[in-house]
Amino acid sequence: MPQRREQDLIARYFAPLAGPGGLGLRDDAALLAPPPGSELVLTADALVAGVHFFGADPPDTIAAKALGVNLSDLAAKAADPLGFLLTVALPRDWTDEWLEAFSRGLGEVASKFHCPLLGGDTVATPGPLTLSITALGAVAAGAMVRRTTASPGDLLYVSGTIGDAALGLILRQAELGEAPAPGWGEILSPRQREMLVGRYLSPQPRQKLVPALRAASAAMDVSDGLVGDMRAMMRASGARAQADLWQVPLSDAASTALAGDPALFGRLVCGGDDYEILCAVPPEAATAFEFLARQTGVPVTALGVVAAAGEREIFLGPDGDSQNFVNDRFSHF
Amino acid sequence: MPQRREQDLIARYFAPLAGPGGLGLRDDAALLAPPPGSELVLTADALVAGVHFFGADPPDTIAAKALGVNLSDLAAKAADPLGFLLTVALPRDWTDEWLEAFSRGLGEVASKFHCPLLGGDTVATPGPLTLSITALGAVAAGAMVRRTTASPGDLLYVSGTIGDAALGLILRQAELGEAPAPGWGEILSPRQREMLVGRYLSPQPRQKLVPALRAASAAMDVSDGLVGDMRAMMRASGARAQADLWQVPLSDAASTALAGDPALFGRLVCGGDDYEILCAVPPEAATAFEFLARQTGVPVTALGVVAAAGEREIFLGPDGDSQNFVNDRFSHF
Repeated sequence: MPQRREQDLIARYFAPLAGPGGLGLRDDAALLAPPPGSELVLTADALVAGVHFFGADPPDTIAAKALGVNLSDLAAKAADPLGFLLTVALPRDWTDEWLEAFSRGLGEVASKFHCPLLGGDTVATPGPLTLSITALGAVAAGAMVRRTTASPGDLLYVSGTIGDAALGLILRQAELGEAPAPGWGEILSPRQREMLVGRYLSPQPRQKLVPALRAASAAMDVSDGLVGDMRAMMRASGARAQADLWQVPLSDAASTALAGDPALFGRLVCGGDDYEILCAVPPEAATAFEFLARQTGVPVTALGVVAAAGEREIFLGPDGDSQNFVNDRFSHF
Repeated sequence: MPQRREQDLIARYFAPLAGPGGLGLRDDAALLAPPPGSELVLTADALVAGVHFFGADPPDTIAAKALGVNLSDLAAKAADPLGFLLTVALPRDWTDEWLEAFSRGLGEVASKFHCPLLGGDTVATPGPLTLSITALGAVAAGAMVRRTTASPGDLLYVSGTIGDAALGLILRQAELGEAPAPGWGEILSPRQREMLVGRYLSPQPRQKLVPALRAASAAMDVSDGLVGDMRAMMRASGARAQADLWQVPLSDAASTALAGDPALFGRLVCGGDDYEILCAVPPEAATAFEFLARQTGVPVTALGVVAAAGEREIFLGPDGDSQNFVNDRFSHF
């Protein structure tokens, strides 16, 4: 894109979101003085229209999702957000209205989570809208909660409710005429449907849970489906999950949908986009963890335990019987 | 892209490039302990196939360019590289051979500039290959060289030679059959042509110049054409450039081409992709700057002075007469 055009666009839509370190987005780079004694936690996620969101999604929710998925990673590492850099590859048909709504949505999330824009780049693409965000957070030295350090005997917890976004995606596909409307959609109230779609469109990073997560031995955010992510954490830690999936916390809407269509169960625990936190907590820290979590107002639920690598992976299902997940997809024995 | 597929790809091609802070790319985030007393310099650039490079370019040079343009920004801020995060949106037709060459090229530049991979994301796209890199550097507190702080009376310097990449782009377009071969191409030796194309494909970040740049009052890298970037620095600093463009340093190849086609002059000083450094140096620091630059082996050339905002912008051309640049494109009075 022509240099002056890009500069105008940055000045108009992005500079108002810049924190002090962003230098008004008028320099080649941002400047950040890390909090003394802290270490930096860095994460980057890319989102592509038609892959990670629908091109027709509201621009403010696209922005909220792009930043939210990165903030979710920071939260899972018990890091406090410091700021983010954004690169945007804009398709040729962008409009001022679109960018205005996009930057508004971005600013709302940035402001809510005290995570100012530090810099980035705006380019043209002949392809779909492509966003890439790098988010920076801070932890006290040594305090980052890893994914790889769950130990046998730890309890496995998950935050919030699981499966809402997976159902929201099905409803959103139906809204856009990309798939037939699911039968279970009809037994939900309009408000329940709206909640599910909202959880798909706009992840709510669990930043509030950070003080409690400092008691965890390992954590990650649940973005690719609970079962797959639990397995990923166990693999990274050299361990096995033994969990009762029937304990997985469900929202009223998801419970209602599941009652109407019991086959949805696999979708709930294997679908993605939850952006909840999965963590392992040593038994002696469990009381403190639950107490701290309760103070934050974010519900947490114990699902099972971490077993040694030589043990059997166990996922108990609805009837207390063992469930089999091939390629992280649900199939009944 | 399926979770396991992405993990395999990361483990195979990217994990070998990860620095200690990258945690083997097996966690959700990277961990970086900034050097004590330092501030962080952060920059992000996105590159799209068909826009910033040709999809048919060698994968190792695509990687070298993506990282190189970010390292060039760090160098212009007098920052030492700490590491980078990379997001890759891969088109459906990617191959293992392509990714192998890409990661090799990336690793070579990362290793040469002591800038390890810290993290990132790999996703699928229905569109063209899209790369986004966030690079982090460190400066002593307060030592970042800004773009916005050139002062009237400062001398304007540029590093290396200008215009090679702009000519290299023309030759590359001809190689790919996207444009006719230029007449001046025939008076160049094969080696000269190769040098010019090489400068387009693989920028050489001027990291070596960092010790000298600490004597500068303002700096930026030359990526969008010398005239446009000089104007951008002056605008950001509230000043005017008064420069003798006939002093612009040219390579033998560019001089030969210009002798064959004098109309190329505007292209040389307005074309992009130079990735040289433009800086303003207070007169009292000029001797130290030139001395330090000479020690690094990177040539620097004085082109003119920074004038006050009320003064006239002056760009002297080949015959000592004034040149007019409308929209940063060259036109003779």
